[in-house]
Amino acid sequence: MTVAEELASIVGSSHVHTDAPTIAENSTDATRRCHPADVVVFPADAAEVCRIVRLADRDRIPIVSRGGGVGYAGGAVPIRGGIVIGMKRMNRILEIDPVDLVAVVEPGVITGDLHDAAAARGLFYPPDPASLRKSTIGGNIAHNAGGPRAFKYGVTRQFLLGLDVVLPNGCLISTGGRVVKNASGYDLTGLMCGSEGTLGVITRAILRLLPAPPASRTLMALFGSARDCAQSACALVGAGIVPSKLEFVDRASVAALRRYVADEGLATPVELPPTVRALLLVEVDGVRDGLDADLDRVRSAIEPGALGLVESGHGEALWELRRHLSPAVARIRPDKINEDIVVPRRRVPDYLEAMERLERECGLPIVCFGHVGDGNIHVNLMLDASDAAQAASAAGAKTRIFELAVEMGGTISGEHGIGIMKSDFLHLAHAPAAIEAMKAVKGALDPKGIMNPGKIFP
Amino acid sequence: MTVAEELASIVGSSHVHTDAPTIAENSTDATRRCHPADVVVFPADAAEVCRIVRLADRDRIPIVSRGGGVGYAGGAVPIRGGIVIGMKRMNRILEIDPVDLVAVVEPGVITGDLHDAAAARGLFYPPDPASLRKSTIGGNIAHNAGGPRAFKYGVTRQFLLGLDVVLPNGCLISTGGRVVKNASGYDLTGLMCGSEGTLGVITRAILRLLPAPPASRTLMALFGSARDCAQSACALVGAGIVPSKLEFVDRASVAALRRYVADEGLATPVELPPTVRALLLVEVDGVRDGLDADLDRVRSAIEPGALGLVESGHGEALWELRRHLSPAVARIRPDKINEDIVVPRRRVPDYLEAMERLERECGLPIVCFGHVGDGNIHVNLMLDASDAAQAASAAGAKTRIFELAVEMGGTISGEHGIGIMKSDFLHLAHAPAAIEAMKAVKGALDPKGIMNPGKIFP
Repeated sequence: MTVAEELASIVGSSHVHTDAPTIAENSTDATRRCHPADVVVFPADAAEVCRIVRLADRDRIPIVSRGGGVGYAGGAVPIRGGIVIGMKRMNRILEIDPVDLVAVVEPGVITGDLHDAAAARGLFYPPDPASLRKSTIGGNIAHNAGGPRAFKYGVTRQFLLGLDVVLPNGCLISTGGRVVKNASGYDLTGLMCGSEGTLGVITRAILRLLPAPPASRTLMALFGSARDCAQSACALVGAGIVPSKLEFVDRASVAALRRYVADEGLATPVELPPTVRALLLVEVDGVRDGLDADLDRVRSAIEPGALGLVESGHGEALWELRRHLSPAVARIRPDKINEDIVVPRRRVPDYLEAMERLERECGLPIVCFGHVGDGNIHVNLMLDASDAAQAASAAGAKTRIFELAVEMGGTISGEHGIGIMKSDFLHLAHAPAAIEAMKAVKGALDPKGIMNPGKIFP
Repeated sequence: MTVAEELASIVGSSHVHTDAPTIAENSTDATRRCHPADVVVFPADAAEVCRIVRLADRDRIPIVSRGGGVGYAGGAVPIRGGIVIGMKRMNRILEIDPVDLVAVVEPGVITGDLHDAAAARGLFYPPDPASLRKSTIGGNIAHNAGGPRAFKYGVTRQFLLGLDVVLPNGCLISTGGRVVKNASGYDLTGLMCGSEGTLGVITRAILRLLPAPPASRTLMALFGSARDCAQSACALVGAGIVPSKLEFVDRASVAALRRYVADEGLATPVELPPTVRALLLVEVDGVRDGLDADLDRVRSAIEPGALGLVESGHGEALWELRRHLSPAVARIRPDKINEDIVVPRRRVPDYLEAMERLERECGLPIVCFGHVGDGNIHVNLMLDASDAAQAASAAGAKTRIFELAVEMGGTISGEHGIGIMKSDFLHLAHAPAAIEAMKAVKGALDPKGIMNPGKIFP
C-alpha cells in the first residue's frame, strides 16, 4: 500500500488528497512561500491523528499541521514535503461552561467563531489576532497569538489551560486541565504553546474565558510624529491606566487603508490633516458607568502630546478597519516584508525613530503600525522583490529591524513566530546555549525530527 | 582540594558551611522532612552560581536551590545530599519600572518585600502565597505559586516574563524578556516555572507588574454547609462576577485559627454561631466609586444560599488572619498531611462533600480551606503520626484525596508542587506517555541528573 492508501484506510479516501490544486492550496500561507506536500489529509478526530502520526513515525515522514493557513512566518509550509494534516473537519466547539469559565474546542475552530459563541453566553475569549475571521485556535496556540486586547488581557498562552496533543511517537496525551492552578509536573501545555507544530499535533484545547466586559469606548488621538505618539502611550501607562487596547498607526498605514477600503467598497476611514503623522487608538472597557471617568483619565494623560483627540462613535467599525491594515499594506507591495518585533514599551519611541532613519538609509518605505501598548510593532518593509537592487537593500534592512529590536531589549517576533522566515535570525534573540537547550527539548520529544521539520531552528 | 574548598574559592570561605546546625537548617522545609546536604553555599551572583554548577556537573554532585524553605512538598530537601545553594545573599530588587511595568529581581527576594516595593510606586505584584513574608520569588517561580488573588489575576506563571537560569551544564541563559508578547522559540521561561529546581538554577527574574487597584472591600458570608458555600461561589462566578479573592474556610479551620491567635496574642477572629459550618470570604478591588455596585452584585448572587452576610471593616486584618490558617491547623496536629488539590470550580461542592464522607470513613478529622474560586482546596488530614493505626488510615485517605480530585477532572497540586511528597501519585495526574515526555525533557536538559534529583518523578 502507498502512504496515501494507508491514510485513506485511516480517514476514508474522500479525506485524502494528492491532486495538484488541493496540494497547492494547503502548501502555502500568508508568506506566499510554497513547497508542495506529498499528501493532504483531513482527519475527523484525535484517534485518526494518532494513527496518521504513527504511520509517519514508522516511515519518518514529515508532518505539518495546518489551521487557517494565514501565518506570516511560513510555519504551515511543508518545506520538506510529507503529510499536511488539515484541521478543517476538527472544528467543533465542544463546550462553553459559564461556571468553570472554560471553552473546550477542537483545533480547527475559527478564532472569531469562538468569540461569537462565547459572546452569546455573555462570555469573552480575549485573544484577537487581526486574522481572527480566518485563523484557527490551533494555529493561535501554535504561534502564541496576541492581538490588540493582549495589552490588557494577555496573549493566547495566558488563556490556555490544557491540551490534548499527539506526540511525535503517536501517543495522545492530555496536558494541564480544566483548572487555572496547576503545580503538578512540567508545564507541557506552555511548552507546546508557541512551538509552531514542531513538538506535536494539537487535537483539543481547554481555554479560559472571562465574563464579557459590558461596554467599551474608543478614543483616537492625532500626533505630529510617531515619537510623540509612542511617548504618549508610555505616559498613559506610566499614569497607571490600563486600556483594553492601545494601538499605533502611522500615516502611511492610514493612506494604505484608505486606498484598500475604497477598492473594496468598505466604509472610508477618517481623512487626516497633513500635519498628522501618527494615530493612537485607545479602547477602554468595563462597566458602562465607569467609562466616562476612564476616558477622562486617558484624555488627561495623552492630551499634552497630541494634536487633537476624537472620540469615535463607531468603535467596532474602527477596530474592524484596524484588522484590514495588514492586507491593505500588502496590496500596495505584495512582496512587502512584514515583521512583528517587540521592544520594551519605554523603547518604542526610540525604535520608531530608528525605523525612520532606516527608511532613509535603505531607500525603501517602512510602514509601521501595531500594538504600541505591548511594544509590539508591525514593521512593513515595502519592496518590489523583482527589483534586484530593492531586494538587496531590503535584506540588509531586515537584519537591522531585528538587530535594533534586540539591542533595545526586545525580541524578533511578538506574535507571528519564527517559522522559516526568521530562523536565520534566531541567534539574534537567543544565546547559543539557549538555542541548544531548545534543540535538546526538540530532540527529546521528536528524536526522528518528523514534526514540522525545518522550522524555528536554522 | 575538597569540594568545600573549591566552593570556598568561588564564593569565599565565609559563605560555605559544613557545620551541623547550618546543614540542618538548610536541609528541611515545611514538611519537616530532612536529609542533610553535604555543604551549604551562599553565592553572591550568577557568575558564582555558574562556577558552582560547573563544579557539580564535573563531579556529578546533586544541586538543590533553596529560597525561603517554606515549601509543603519537600522540594528543597536535599534527599541525595550534595550542594544546597541558598539564595539569601541574592535578594536584591534590581529595578521597578512603572512604564515597562516590570520588576527585575534576584531569586532570594522575599515575595512580601516585592509587594511592598511595588506598592510604594503605586504598582502591584499579584501573586500572594500565604507564606509571602517568608517565601522567595525564586521559590514561587520554582513551584508556580498562587494565593488568593490568583482567582482574578492568575498565578506566578502569568506574571513571569523572563529568567536568567544556570542550566545543569553550567551555562547561564536568558529566557523571555522585558516584553509580554514573545513568539521567538520555545517558552523556556514557562518550562522552568513549576519545574521545582530540576531543570536549572534561577538567578534573576523579570516579573510583570500592574497598576495597583486603588481600593478593595471584603465581605464575609456564613453558610450552613460546605456544599452551600461552594455552590454560592459557583453562583457568583456564573453571574459574571470576578472578585479579586474568593476563599472558603470550614468551621474546623476557624476553630483552629481562634486557638492559634489566642496563643499568639493576635486579634481574635469572629466567633461563629453553632449553625455556621463554612465561611466565604470575598474581596472586590478596583476604583473606589465602583466598589459599592460590585458588592451589591456579590450580595445578590450569594445571599440566597447564605445564613448571613457581614461586611468586614477590617479587610487586610482578615486576610492576614487567613494567612495564619496553615500554621494554625498544623499546631493542632504537627504531623497533619496538607494537600492542595484542584478540581474544576463546578465540582468543588461535590469534592467538599466527598471529603466529609472520607472523614467519616477514615476516622480522622479532615480540615478544609482554600481558594474556592480556583477550585484549589487545601485538604488537611489531621493525624498523630506516632499512632500506627492513624498512620495506616491516613495513607489510604491520602490516596483517595488525590484520586477523587483527578476523577472530578482536577489534579493533585495547585500550588505546592510534587516534590517528594506527591511523586508517588504523579501517575494519577498524568498518563504514562505524558510522564515519559516530562522525563525526556528532564533527560535532555540534565543528562547527568544533578539538578534536585529525586523530585517530581518517583
